[in-house]
Amino acid sequence: MRAKVELIVSAQWFDYVITAVIVINAIGLGLETSSGIMANYGGVIVALDTLALTIFVVELAMKLFAYRMNFFRNGWNVFDLVIVSVALIPASQQFSVLRALRILRALRLVSVVPSMRKVIHGLFSAIPSIGTVIVMLLLLFYISSVMATKLFGQAFPDWFGTIGASLYSLFQIMTLESWSMGIVRPVMEVYPYSWAFFVPFILLTSFIVLNLFIGVIVNAMAEATDEEAHDERETIINELRLLRAEITAMRESQPPSGP
Amino acid sequence: MRAKVELIVSAQWFDYVITAVIVINAIGLGLETSSGIMANYGGVIVALDTLALTIFVVELAMKLFAYRMNFFRNGWNVFDLVIVSVALIPASQQFSVLRALRILRALRLVSVVPSMRKVIHGLFSAIPSIGTVIVMLLLLFYISSVMATKLFGQAFPDWFGTIGASLYSLFQIMTLESWSMGIVRPVMEVYPYSWAFFVPFILLTSFIVLNLFIGVIVNAMAEATDEEAHDERETIINELRLLRAEITAMRESQPPSGP
Amino acid sequence: MRAKVELIVSAQWFDYVITAVIVINAIGLGLETSSGIMANYGGVIVALDTLALTIFVVELAMKLFAYRMNFFRNGWNVFDLVIVSVALIPASQQFSVLRALRILRALRLVSVVPSMRKVIHGLFSAIPSIGTVIVMLLLLFYISSVMATKLFGQAFPDWFGTIGASLYSLFQIMTLESWSMGIVRPVMEVYPYSWAFFVPFILLTSFIVLNLFIGVIVNAMAEATDEEAHDERETIINELRLLRAEITAMRESQPPSGP
Amino acid sequence: MRAKVELIVSAQWFDYVITAVIVINAIGLGLETSSGIMANYGGVIVALDTLALTIFVVELAMKLFAYRMNFFRNGWNVFDLVIVSVALIPASQQFSVLRALRILRALRLVSVVPSMRKVIHGLFSAIPSIGTVIVMLLLLFYISSVMATKLFGQAFPDWFGTIGASLYSLFQIMTLESWSMGIVRPVMEVYPYSWAFFVPFILLTSFIVLNLFIGVIVNAMAEATDEEAHDERETIINELRLLRAEITAMRESQPPSGP
Repeated sequence: MRAKVELIVSAQWFDYVITAVIVINAIGLGLETSSGIMANYGGVIVALDTLALTIFVVELAMKLFAYRMNFFRNGWNVFDLVIVSVALIPASQQFSVLRALRILRALRLVSVVPSMRKVIHGLFSAIPSIGTVIVMLLLLFYISSVMATKLFGQAFPDWFGTIGASLYSLFQIMTLESWSMGIVRPVMEVYPYSWAFFVPFILLTSFIVLNLFIGVIVNAMAEATDEEAHDERETIINELRLLRAEITAMRESQPPSGP
Repeated sequence: MRAKVELIVSAQWFDYVITAVIVINAIGLGLETSSGIMANYGGVIVALDTLALTIFVVELAMKLFAYRMNFFRNGWNVFDLVIVSVALIPASQQFSVLRALRILRALRLVSVVPSMRKVIHGLFSAIPSIGTVIVMLLLLFYISSVMATKLFGQAFPDWFGTIGASLYSLFQIMTLESWSMGIVRPVMEVYPYSWAFFVPFILLTSFIVLNLFIGVIVNAMAEATDEEAHDERETIINELRLLRAEITAMRESQPPSGP
Repeated sequence: MRAKVELIVSAQWFDYVITAVIVINAIGLGLETSSGIMANYGGVIVALDTLALTIFVVELAMKLFAYRMNFFRNGWNVFDLVIVSVALIPASQQFSVLRALRILRALRLVSVVPSMRKVIHGLFSAIPSIGTVIVMLLLLFYISSVMATKLFGQAFPDWFGTIGASLYSLFQIMTLESWSMGIVRPVMEVYPYSWAFFVPFILLTSFIVLNLFIGVIVNAMAEATDEEAHDERETIINELRLLRAEITAMRESQPPSGP
Repeated sequence: MRAKVELIVSAQWFDYVITAVIVINAIGLGLETSSGIMANYGGVIVALDTLALTIFVVELAMKLFAYRMNFFRNGWNVFDLVIVSVALIPASQQFSVLRALRILRALRLVSVVPSMRKVIHGLFSAIPSIGTVIVMLLLLFYISSVMATKLFGQAFPDWFGTIGASLYSLFQIMTLESWSMGIVRPVMEVYPYSWAFFVPFILLTSFIVLNLFIGVIVNAMAEATDEEAHDERETIINELRLLRAEITAMRESQPPSGP
C-alpha cells in the first residue's frame, strides 16, 4: 500500500497534474479580484478554488503517508506544507490578509519546476560568501538608525521618530528614492550639517551593496566559466602523467641495452 | 529571371542602397514632426516618404520572388515584412497611432547592418540561460499584484484597483521611482504594516533582476574571454599528443637495440 | 606581570567577552531611543552603558600596557581607541551630537570579528586600483560645481549659490534623484540651454562611477577565480619540468650505449 | 635653440611646474565664486589667473616651437590648446558662459598626470567594442522621440512638443527619474494605453545600457585578468616545444646505437 502511494507521488505525470492545478488555481485567484467576473462566475471560481485546495491537501497527505518523517527532510515539502496550511486557517472577513495570502500557493510552481528550484538553490549557495556582508549592512543600518533617531527624531518624528521609522527612512534613502528633495533638504533646513550624516551613509551603503553584488557575481562566474577550463587543464595534467609514465617505463627498459 | 533577381537582392550595393533609403526616410519622418518645416516643404517630405515606401515594397517583392518560401525562414525578412506592412494599412486621421508607427521602419537599419544584427543575436542567445529567471519574475509580479489588489485595492483604486493597475504600480516600485514618498508612505497611513509587503517585494525583485543581469553577463563573458584561453589550451593538448606520439615512436624503434 | 596581561588580551575567550559586551551595549543604546522604555528602565540602561564603557576602557588600557607602542601599529587598535575616546568627552546637553556618536561603538564589532575585518581589508586592497578614478571623479565634481555656481548661482542661490551648495546639488544629480523634475527643468526655464551642462555631467559621472565599479569588480574577480586556475597551471609547469629532467637524465645515461 | 626648448618642455620638472600652476589656478577660479573673498582679495586672484594663463600660453608656444607640426599629432596637445584658447576669447560681460568655461583649464590635469591619461585611453579603447551598441541606443532614442512627439506632442507640448523636448524627456525616463509619477501617469490620464509605449521603452533602454556596460566590463576584464594566465600558458607551450626538440635531438642521436 505505502509503496504504491510512493510510486504515484514520485511519478512524472503526478508532477504535471499538480503543476496544472497550481496554474489553474492561480488564474482563478487572479479572476477573483475582478468584481465584474465574480458577480457572474463567482460560484464556479470559488468551487474551483476549493477543489484545488482539496487536491493539494490530498497530495500532501499522500506524500506524508509515503515518506513518513523523511517528508520533512526535504525543504521543498515543508515549504509546500506551510503554504497550503495558510489557506486552511479559518479566515473570517476581518482577516482579509489571510485570504490575500492564498495566492502564495502559486509559489508552489517554484517547488515543482526543477529549473526554478535550481535558481533558488543557486541563490542559497551564494549566501555563505555574502553572509558577512549582509551582517555588516544590518549593523550599518542599526547604527545609522539609532543615530538618526537621536539626532533628528524630535524635529522629524514622522521620518525618524522611532528606530523603526528611521530604519524605513534609511532604507528609502539607500534606494535613493527622493532622498534629497524629499528628506535631506528639509532636514538640512533645521540641521544645516545633516548632509555630513546622509551623504556618507549613501556612499557606504552603495559600497556594501556593491560588495554584495560582487559576491554573488563572483560566485556565479566561478561556477559557470571555470568548469570547461578546469576540465581542459585536467586533461593536460593527465596527459602529462601518462607521458611521464611512458618515459619512466622506457628508461627502466633501457639499462640492459647499456654498457 | 529568378536567378537574376536573386543576384541583385544579394548584392552588396543593394544593401547599401536600402540602408541609404532607410536613413533618408527616417530623417524625413523626423522632419514631419516640425509644423514649421511641414508648412514649407511638406509636399517634398510626403513625396519622399511615399517613394521610400515604394522602394521597400519593391525590395520585399523582389526578395519574395527570389527566395519563395525560404524568404520566411529568415527571421529578419519576416521582421522587415511586418514593419513595412504596418505602413500600408490605410490610416485615417483617427488612427494616428498607425501613422506614428511608420517611424518603426527606421528599425530596419538593425536588420540591414550586420554588426547590429550580431548584437540582437547575442541577446537572443542569452535568453535560454535567463528564461527561467524571467518566468520567476513574471510569477512574482503576478502573485504580488493579486495580493496588492486584494489588500490595498479598495483604499487606493488608482494604484491597486485592478490587477493591471497593480502590475503597473509594482513595475514603478521595482524601478524605485517614487516608491516610498509617492506610494508606500501614503499607503502606510491607511495600512501601517504595508511596508512588510513592499520592502520584501523590492528586495526580491532587485535580487531576481540581479540574477537576470548575471545570466546575461556570464553568458557574454564566457563567450568573450574564454575563446583565446581555450585556443591556447587546445594548442597545449595537441603539442602533448605530438610529444607522446614521438616518444611512442622512439620506444618502438628501440627494442632492436635491446638485449 | 606584562606577559600575563598579554596572555589574557590575546586569549580567544577575551575576544568573545568583548564581542558580547559590544552587542549588549549596542542593544542598550538602541533601547535608549524609546522614551517609554527609558521612563521605566532608564536607570538600568544607563548603568549598563557606563559598565560597558568601563570594560572598554579597561580592555584598551590592558592592551596598551601589554603591547606598549606596538599597540599603535595595528590600525584596528587605533580605530577602537578613537571610538571609545569619543564617549569619554564630557557631553553636556548641548552637544547632543556627541551623545549620538556613542552608538559608533557598535562598529567595534567589525574590528573584533575576523570575517568582517577581511571584508574591510578587501576594500582597502582595491583602493590603489581605483585611486586615480576617484581623483578624476573629485576633479569633475570640483570643475562642475565651479561652473554651476558661476552659471546658475545668481538665479538659483539655494541649489547653486556657493561651491558647497553646488557640490551637494551635483551629488544629488549624480544619484539621479529628482534631477530633472526637481532641478534641471526649473533651471531650463531660466537658462534654456542648461541641459547641455547637466546631461553630459550625468553621462560623465555615470561612466566614471562605472569605471570605479569595474576596478573593484576586476580586483575581486582576479583574486577569487584565478587562484584555482593558477594552481593548476603551476602543477602543469612543475610536471613539465620533472619531465624534462627525466629526459635529460635519460639522454645523459645513453651516450655510453652509443658508438 | 629649438633643441634647447625641446629639452625644457620634455623635462620632468617642466611637467611638475605646469601641474602646480594648473592646481593653483583651479583653486583661484574656485575662490572667485565667493563674493566675500573677491571683495577682499579680488585683485590678487585676478592677477594670479592672468599669470597662470600667461604661463599656459608660453608653455604651448614653446611646445609648438619645439615640435612644429608634430605638436598636432598628439591628441593631448590639441586638447590643451583648445582649452587654453577658450580663455583668450574676449569675454564681455554678456558672455558669462565663456568666463565660466575658464575652469575647464583644470581638466588639463588629466592631460598632465600619466595615470589619468591611462584611464582615458582605456575608455577610448573600449569604444570599438561598444560603438554598435551606442548607435543602436541613439537609433532607439530617435525612433522613440519621433513616435512620442507624434503621439503625445499635442497634449503635452512641454514634454513632447518637439523632437528635442521628447529626446530630453525620454532621457529623463531612461534614468527612471520621476518617470511614472511625474510623466507617465499624467500622460495615461489622457492616453490610457501610453504605458504600452513607455514600459517597453524602459525595458529596451535598460537592456541596451546593460549591454553597453557588459561591453566595457568584458573589455576591462579580458585585459586585466587574462594577462597573467596568458603568460603562464605561453610558458607551458614554450616548455613543451623545448621538450619536443630535446626528444627529437635524442632520437636523431640514437640510430647509430641501433642495429
